[in-house]
Amino acid sequence: MYSYQRLFDFSHKIFLSMGCPAEDALSATETLLSADLRGVDSHGVARLVGYVRLWEAGRINATPTVRIVHETPSTATVDGDGGLGLVVAPKAMQIAIEKAKNAGSGWVSVKNSNHYGIAGYHAMKALAHDMIGMSMTNASPLVAPTHSLERLLGTNPIAVAIPAGEQPPFVADMATTTAANGKLEMLQRKNLEAPLGWIQAADGSASTNPNELKDGGALLPLGGDTGSHKGYALGAVVDIFSAVLSGANYGPWVPPFVSFLAPPADPVGAGIGHFFGAMRVDAFRPAAEFKQHMDHWITRFKTSKAKEGQQVLIPGEPERLFTEQRLKDGIPLLPPVVKDLEVLGEKFGVQL
Amino acid sequence: MYSYQRLFDFSHKIFLSMGCPAEDALSATETLLSADLRGVDSHGVARLVGYVRLWEAGRINATPTVRIVHETPSTATVDGDGGLGLVVAPKAMQIAIEKAKNAGSGWVSVKNSNHYGIAGYHAMKALAHDMIGMSMTNASPLVAPTHSLERLLGTNPIAVAIPAGEQPPFVADMATTTAANGKLEMLQRKNLEAPLGWIQAADGSASTNPNELKDGGALLPLGGDTGSHKGYALGAVVDIFSAVLSGANYGPWVPPFVSFLAPPADPVGAGIGHFFGAMRVDAFRPAAEFKQHMDHWITRFKTSKAKEGQQVLIPGEPERLFTEQRLKDGIPLLPPVVKDLEVLGEKFGVQL
Repeated sequence: MYSYQRLFDFSHKIFLSMGCPAEDALSATETLLSADLRGVDSHGVARLVGYVRLWEAGRINATPTVRIVHETPSTATVDGDGGLGLVVAPKAMQIAIEKAKNAGSGWVSVKNSNHYGIAGYHAMKALAHDMIGMSMTNASPLVAPTHSLERLLGTNPIAVAIPAGEQPPFVADMATTTAANGKLEMLQRKNLEAPLGWIQAADGSASTNPNELKDGGALLPLGGDTGSHKGYALGAVVDIFSAVLSGANYGPWVPPFVSFLAPPADPVGAGIGHFFGAMRVDAFRPAAEFKQHMDHWITRFKTSKAKEGQQVLIPGEPERLFTEQRLKDGIPLLPPVVKDLEVLGEKFGVQL
Repeated sequence: MYSYQRLFDFSHKIFLSMGCPAEDALSATETLLSADLRGVDSHGVARLVGYVRLWEAGRINATPTVRIVHETPSTATVDGDGGLGLVVAPKAMQIAIEKAKNAGSGWVSVKNSNHYGIAGYHAMKALAHDMIGMSMTNASPLVAPTHSLERLLGTNPIAVAIPAGEQPPFVADMATTTAANGKLEMLQRKNLEAPLGWIQAADGSASTNPNELKDGGALLPLGGDTGSHKGYALGAVVDIFSAVLSGANYGPWVPPFVSFLAPPADPVGAGIGHFFGAMRVDAFRPAAEFKQHMDHWITRFKTSKAKEGQQVLIPGEPERLFTEQRLKDGIPLLPPVVKDLEVLGEKFGVQL
């Protein structure tokens, strides 16, 4: 187990070593580690070395000037200047929140960015302002649209965070695929088969082999066998809001996260794209009234009659329990992740 | 086959007979029949008699005063005054579009309404203004959240319409369940089994019986066996945006569409709720640039390598082909639907 503070100090020093300004290094660290706290191990400190490699390859700008390039009272397009998504995204979400203060809602599309950690973290930034937060991003193409043999979409997550009163907030954060890529990676490590409906082989046939993506296979959109056209449509909306609105790369042109794969030679935009939203709840009805009804909604669903031995969960509940536990007991890291971090620490003269 | 014009004239006269003002009767007719044109037979003229019965039961106000009760530059809450959703929704969508003209985007939550036809029709209203349109609504509870034995959510659809240039627009319109209720009704009529993952029995076990809902069963959220928590979260977001933001009934309190079932005795709000959005594409980048990239996006996906005998479709493509065909060849109606309409016509002295 590694304490949150220990991983925070380590990651912070690494980002400083990359040349990130002090405030950006803090923001990147908090954003990255929110994944470990929420139990999304694939997107947290395990990816630190990946971000560093992209920077070493000259594909991340450690000192970006993030700026608005187009705007209206309730919208903005932001150029991330090739910065870490971990740095660009919090700045863009803050712009959405400021717009919402004045116009009731704020919507920000971002180009020229990189991977931004977990979607839910950014959406949750709205909660402290009594706002509903939304966050989505496109990502490297791993997913075949319904009937396609090609990987044209990323796992393109959508997050929605909604404040409540006495109850903890409602926080949905989901890939628009049946299973996130991180879950496949876990099956690969453990040498287990995947359920039907998660992946297809290169010829489009159903597969349970978690290594299928290495042989030309693809992840399947949410809905699996009987409804994948819905997951495809959702993933497509994320791609269009994040990249066609902003001027980022979309579909199969989204650059890969891993530094050993070159970005496409014929980009259709700049970097990867995100989309953020913030709506003041009191732009619709008094906040106290809204929160009282959210508490009522949450309580009714949470206490509904469940299958034997099960209970109905509110979106965000499992992640909140992870956070409580990991802040207390520490964060478990797999041996290969620890090894990666140690090598990284040696390179920069930072102790894990 | 019944021509669009014939069904239009008939429905229009029925709405006028209900006492709808002339303009509302036209709007309701166009909204209702958009479902028949787009191939969503369950939501079109087949439901006309259902709307009339609700009006006869005093649960629909034929002469509503639809008004804004709360607003900011980019948002509004609308009270539908108990009107037909077919009348209230177009007015609310128009408010979203007007807000977007001034503020870049417009977002409208609606209370005190009724069923509004197909979600996609309302979202598509934005297209002529070079805007992205969004539309969602809650509905009578038929869906059990993951692990629940209770029906707490409707099929709560989400529609997103995105303009393109040379290409037809992208129009996603989907229930947040694996299968819409209309598809179950088709299986019931044909006495066929449902695929696994669509429904559960009263005890929560998997079922293929399309009549299961009559015995306490429930529809399942999008994602089926391996990912229904995502469909549940999406359906919940639709419910909260449509009803907790506006002050409509939510979750299990949403009143039923059928007049023979009484609304819950302990309402938590007024009527059913909708949520609409409009975003000017030139609130993010010049419209011509956006459309050029949308054309590129659509072409790339449409021409991607597909499984043998299949092709990759763009959301909205099948519905557009239905519209072209049905405007030309007419709209097929099932014998029981024709019978219903004839009885309705006799009652109001209107010839089908």
